[in-house]
Amino acid sequence: MKILITSGGTTEKIDQVRGITNHSTGRLGKQIAERFLAAQHQVTLVTAPSAVKPSVQEGLSVLEISTVADLIETLEPLVKTHDVLIHSMAVSDYTPVYMTDFEEVEHADNLAQFLTKQNTQTKISSQADYQVLFLKKTPKVISLVKQWNPAIKLIGFKLLVNADKKELFQVARNSLNTNQMDYVLANDLAHISAEQHLAYLLDKTKAYKAQTKAEIADLIFEKVTDHD
Amino acid sequence: MKILITSGGTTEKIDQVRGITNHSTGRLGKQIAERFLAAQHQVTLVTAPSAVKPSVQEGLSVLEISTVADLIETLEPLVKTHDVLIHSMAVSDYTPVYMTDFEEVEHADNLAQFLTKQNTQTKISSQADYQVLFLKKTPKVISLVKQWNPAIKLIGFKLLVNADKKELFQVARNSLNTNQMDYVLANDLAHISAEQHLAYLLDKTKAYKAQTKAEIADLIFEKVTDHD
Repeated sequence: MKILITSGGTTEKIDQVRGITNHSTGRLGKQIAERFLAAQHQVTLVTAPSAVKPSVQEGLSVLEISTVADLIETLEPLVKTHDVLIHSMAVSDYTPVYMTDFEEVEHADNLAQFLTKQNTQTKISSQADYQVLFLKKTPKVISLVKQWNPAIKLIGFKLLVNADKKELFQVARNSLNTNQMDYVLANDLAHISAEQHLAYLLDKTKAYKAQTKAEIADLIFEKVTDHD
Repeated sequence: MKILITSGGTTEKIDQVRGITNHSTGRLGKQIAERFLAAQHQVTLVTAPSAVKPSVQEGLSVLEISTVADLIETLEPLVKTHDVLIHSMAVSDYTPVYMTDFEEVEHADNLAQFLTKQNTQTKISSQADYQVLFLKKTPKVISLVKQWNPAIKLIGFKLLVNADKKELFQVARNSLNTNQMDYVLANDLAHISAEQHLAYLLDKTKAYKAQTKAEIADLIFEKVTDHD
């Protein structure tokens, strides 16, 4: 099978030196990729420059992207030519529009003007004690996948922070339904450490538990290859 | 000599999953560290988790930090026990204070209230079309160095974007004087690529040109070890 995996986190530029980053090491995506490669599947990994990656090997292609716009442009043709997408990348939900001194904002009559402004400096000045950054929502990449290829098997990821299990399942299943995922991996940052990675792989009705990144990789591998 | 080098970029947290990052690969700092290690100097490298690093070797200690606050806490005792600081790290000049929906800001009577507010959620909600992030200036790490240790030899870095040479020299020498640097490396993002890294090492009156990261490392090495 042709397996498409995303990993790492996107970065949206504020200016040429600063950006907003979704923190993700890429470790889980790497492990999932290695699980499929070990079983001779063909893997395309779309990832961030700073993410950890499997070693160069037959059957693996790696593509690096930075921004959500890059991700969409890169994924669309790949989604159309792969059997499975395992979308573990932490995708920025907001992208910078305009950054300015607090004083300019405080003295403005109309704040909506800042939602369409653009910075002209290549490196935004850093004199003021306070600055204000206006951001707008990015397109939801996961919601586009089944539009691009209704036949692809889609495994999404939902990460919460300090949620209880009920809330985690609710939010994850809501995303599963909205984005027509086949499975969603529900996990919580509070239960992720170097040794442990508690997660639940959910479909509409069932839940499968994993305790480590290796177990998550095994679980996803089993479910994806189950009906082959 | 005991050489302290900083490299990579700091990240200031917006919440537990997002941060503002100063982009820097750490490549130049790595090369400078390797130059001193090759001449049997003792090197302490303070760097970011995602930055590239020299291989583990005798004479090298590596410390990883994320935020400006981490950097200050880590650097202060080190500055007091080293002979030289080569401060090539890209340090965040602003840190997030509060992030909220645009509507909340638009309808507020007094915007200054947002400069002292704190987000209570661990992962800021992402429903609104637009959000606003308030940021405050971070302490200038470079300005503290000679207060901590007046005898340390200090090499600072100034990176501009698309400046002309005259402006670059002016801004760099201004920083040299303000922060009591012994040398400042002045460079411009427009002249940095994989093969090339145009830079000028300036003191109060003279300027030395380098065209690659290796030449920069050599130049700094020469000036630092000159009067030993």
